[in-house]
Amino acid sequence: MSETAAKTRANRPVLALAMGDPAGISSELTARLLSLPELRSAAHLIVIGDRRILDEGAEAAQIALDLDFRTVSDFSTGPAERPVFVDLGHLDPADVTRGEATLAGGIFATENFRFALRLANEGRVDGVCFTPFNKKAMRYAYPGYDDEIRFVSDVLPFKGKMREFNVLERIWNARVTSHIPLSAVSAHISEDAILAEVELTVACLRLAGIDNPKIAVAGLNPHAGDGGSFGMEEIEVIEPAVARAKAEGYAVEGPFPADTVFLRAVKEGFHAVLTMYHDQGQIAMKMMGFDKGVTMMGGLPFPLCTPAHGTAYDIAGRGTADVGASREAVLLAAKMAVRQAGLKETAHNTD
Amino acid sequence: MSETAAKTRANRPVLALAMGDPAGISSELTARLLSLPELRSAAHLIVIGDRRILDEGAEAAQIALDLDFRTVSDFSTGPAERPVFVDLGHLDPADVTRGEATLAGGIFATENFRFALRLANEGRVDGVCFTPFNKKAMRYAYPGYDDEIRFVSDVLPFKGKMREFNVLERIWNARVTSHIPLSAVSAHISEDAILAEVELTVACLRLAGIDNPKIAVAGLNPHAGDGGSFGMEEIEVIEPAVARAKAEGYAVEGPFPADTVFLRAVKEGFHAVLTMYHDQGQIAMKMMGFDKGVTMMGGLPFPLCTPAHGTAYDIAGRGTADVGASREAVLLAAKMAVRQAGLKETAHNTD
Repeated sequence: MSETAAKTRANRPVLALAMGDPAGISSELTARLLSLPELRSAAHLIVIGDRRILDEGAEAAQIALDLDFRTVSDFSTGPAERPVFVDLGHLDPADVTRGEATLAGGIFATENFRFALRLANEGRVDGVCFTPFNKKAMRYAYPGYDDEIRFVSDVLPFKGKMREFNVLERIWNARVTSHIPLSAVSAHISEDAILAEVELTVACLRLAGIDNPKIAVAGLNPHAGDGGSFGMEEIEVIEPAVARAKAEGYAVEGPFPADTVFLRAVKEGFHAVLTMYHDQGQIAMKMMGFDKGVTMMGGLPFPLCTPAHGTAYDIAGRGTADVGASREAVLLAAKMAVRQAGLKETAHNTD
Repeated sequence: MSETAAKTRANRPVLALAMGDPAGISSELTARLLSLPELRSAAHLIVIGDRRILDEGAEAAQIALDLDFRTVSDFSTGPAERPVFVDLGHLDPADVTRGEATLAGGIFATENFRFALRLANEGRVDGVCFTPFNKKAMRYAYPGYDDEIRFVSDVLPFKGKMREFNVLERIWNARVTSHIPLSAVSAHISEDAILAEVELTVACLRLAGIDNPKIAVAGLNPHAGDGGSFGMEEIEVIEPAVARAKAEGYAVEGPFPADTVFLRAVKEGFHAVLTMYHDQGQIAMKMMGFDKGVTMMGGLPFPLCTPAHGTAYDIAGRGTADVGASREAVLLAAKMAVRQAGLKETAHNTD
């Protein structure tokens, strides 16, 4: 690590912020984020995009930008007073149709994201954030785009375990399986898979500042199988996995019936719910206002965060988009980056 | 139908109310229900239980009972000013341990329920309600007790399609599959099963006074399959079923992603959400406060309703139990009974 980067880190983590889909609210959210004093003091931001697109966002949000505008060949991630904008100069606003998923929009967003990920991979930034993508547009630009995790593992040499977490202030949601058919879920539930997910969840919660995380584990079947009447996975797989996790010292309880596990977890002070499949968590989290929450990709050597909501094509350009979830995403990434970068340095020191 | 029964029906429907588990809040809820003037004017209640147990509930709830106490061999379901209590004299309060599931409690509740169901089967009442059962106690008394539906189909000669509905004031939840392992759900999802469920849901909503019901149908897989990326049931089964239902004149839309279908349904004025499996609906309904809702068994020749919450062993006997959900259960049964009994009479007239 260079001396200047180390100095910046001692002070504030450096985060790359990739501009998202240009046809939605991403540009105005980016502009708004750059105006928040609490973010400027929490992290040094390196914003990736096209200046003309950002200017449109700033105009919609009525924000006077105070940035250090740079080009790809002339920028530093070292300590600086003002956020740095890296202008890739790759999208003319004339090519953007507001409220429409296009190839041009997808290329813009994937290139920004790829650039930000590379900065993190090279150790030039401590974490990555992005404003919302549009999946359809991403697929125009990159047909194999299933989700962010798939894209990241395609772009980066990192081949470790990487998982999506959904973060609300009062509760996190981790899951054993995600974007697979419901009929395939049971076959993917194993003791090892559950244990690995518990370990990663605890590691991520600790990076986020929760030193003694408590995790509630959901069952798979109605009424958590009701003693084996409605399925055997609880008895054969989930209970043994919880027992193993406890034996390894993790504060884990369950399996609890899925229809009340979130209510119980919030009431009883659990920090996360580990669900067995996508909608088991998503139904509850969206009911609890997850569109105001943060999606965090855990397991990478750096934090990767984004607001949970989408591109909101219907209100694009009006300047009315709520920056709350994007703000939380940057603050979470900053908090995790401090610890994760610190841990890396400690690890280096003991080499 | 006897002249007196017909007269009563013209006036108010006759409902049997079976006392539930004696170790929880069922007795005080029963006493409280009997004191509500709006229930006494909505239905003529025939309460089934043991007077000594009811007296304890009345004492806990501080209710002065105003009932016509009768025995099994000497009671009528004909028109009467006061609710009728049929005293089966089968449980001594000394045999009840508050807050504990016992064989004695299970026998008490199953016998009350069985008696009420027989009255309905014989056409002596127009509907049945019950205060909460404890499943463990029910199983002590009746080992094959899986749920109310299973018990009813064991007890009654009725062999038609019977399904559980979850009712909140703002939305109903119907489901294609219920108490089966999650891994078996996909195999049970068929066009015919979905269509049958749509038909029954519409019929029940109409009995409840909603003349033009709108139903939102949930997908099965994450993001409703995302165009086939995460499962094919939406494309191969659910979409064709929705199309068939529309062709038959039903106001049905979907499939919608499960994680937002309830939020959408409430916002867009749907009357019910048809989910593919148990927890898909239960997670959302419990988040929306379903412990204050009503469980209704639809498809029988008469309405069968109960509060959605349980026996609340932890607060039994304190007189603090909220009667709200039980009140809604009786009011829903009364409303449905008026139409369902009327429809039966009309059907008879056209024979």
